[in-house]
Amino acid sequence: MKFCSACGGPLAVRVPKGDNRPRHVCNACERIHYQNPQVVVGCLPIWGQQILLCRRAIHPRRGFWTLPAGFMENGESTEDGAARETLEEACAEVRGLKLASVFSLPHIDQVHLFYRAELVEGRYAVGAETLEVGLFNEGEIPWSELAFATVRNALEQYFSERAEGLYATRAMTLRPDGDRV
Amino acid sequence: MKFCSACGGPLAVRVPKGDNRPRHVCNACERIHYQNPQVVVGCLPIWGQQILLCRRAIHPRRGFWTLPAGFMENGESTEDGAARETLEEACAEVRGLKLASVFSLPHIDQVHLFYRAELVEGRYAVGAETLEVGLFNEGEIPWSELAFATVRNALEQYFSERAEGLYATRAMTLRPDGDRV
Repeated sequence: MKFCSACGGPLAVRVPKGDNRPRHVCNACERIHYQNPQVVVGCLPIWGQQILLCRRAIHPRRGFWTLPAGFMENGESTEDGAARETLEEACAEVRGLKLASVFSLPHIDQVHLFYRAELVEGRYAVGAETLEVGLFNEGEIPWSELAFATVRNALEQYFSERAEGLYATRAMTLRPDGDRV
Repeated sequence: MKFCSACGGPLAVRVPKGDNRPRHVCNACERIHYQNPQVVVGCLPIWGQQILLCRRAIHPRRGFWTLPAGFMENGESTEDGAARETLEEACAEVRGLKLASVFSLPHIDQVHLFYRAELVEGRYAVGAETLEVGLFNEGEIPWSELAFATVRNALEQYFSERAEGLYATRAMTLRPDGDRV
């Protein structure tokens, strides 16, 4: 970030008056350009005993398996965003979304929210950004080929809760190595 | 957003290849400048039967009462951010944070997360951005002078759950009028 997106002037990094951390500030128009964490939203689409996973066609982690998820857009709720990503990546409709996992990833400035959701009529297909889509029983999950630590943790939580028959929303922070703080 | 923050070139609004919605794209360097929702994090600081509220010294809603909350910063977890905001606005330490409410506010492109938290030793003081801080019993909450719909909904949820003796994390979407979808 080098130029002011409002006036085109050069940016400096300094602590603005009344603030306590360095920001990008425009030398010309004094506008402050904050940088804040991004929200990623996704689903665990459930069909009977099976979970839908997608194999990624794009970087990062091309070829690895993921839950359908992506960056939340302006103008939508977290739930709408999770359903939209599932439709885009797996051509799959979901309903009955319940917030399951809230992950903080401070090392990459992201917050990920995953919803348990019912896969409507068990229908899915390969979407854009996806090589392959499939339904997996617990014993078939490709644990060593999962794309992201959030996906692993969300799946572990789901199968653990399903075994106990008791679901809850859990918030946790993940370290760079993917384990919980 | 008129100029590219990377090269200073003029921005156009168009749908990039492989995308499905208009973005700000640089005519010179082709960089795409995404705009995504912001995360606000805050606490319900609890001391016995009382809840800590702050009267805002800043706009918007100057003079109205709020739970301590503010924009999540890069490099922190949602929990760390909620505790930091409580320290900044009410000079109050909190511990034992439990995620209580997740609000989507699609009309202003924000997601708000509120944590129940124990106010350490019942200590607080007036922080920057705050006119006044106080502890309130349920019957003393200034409902008509609350700053934001998220604060009202988070407090209503807390007192309802406290009455039932059963707490949970709840995700909901608020309309522009502040009521739940």
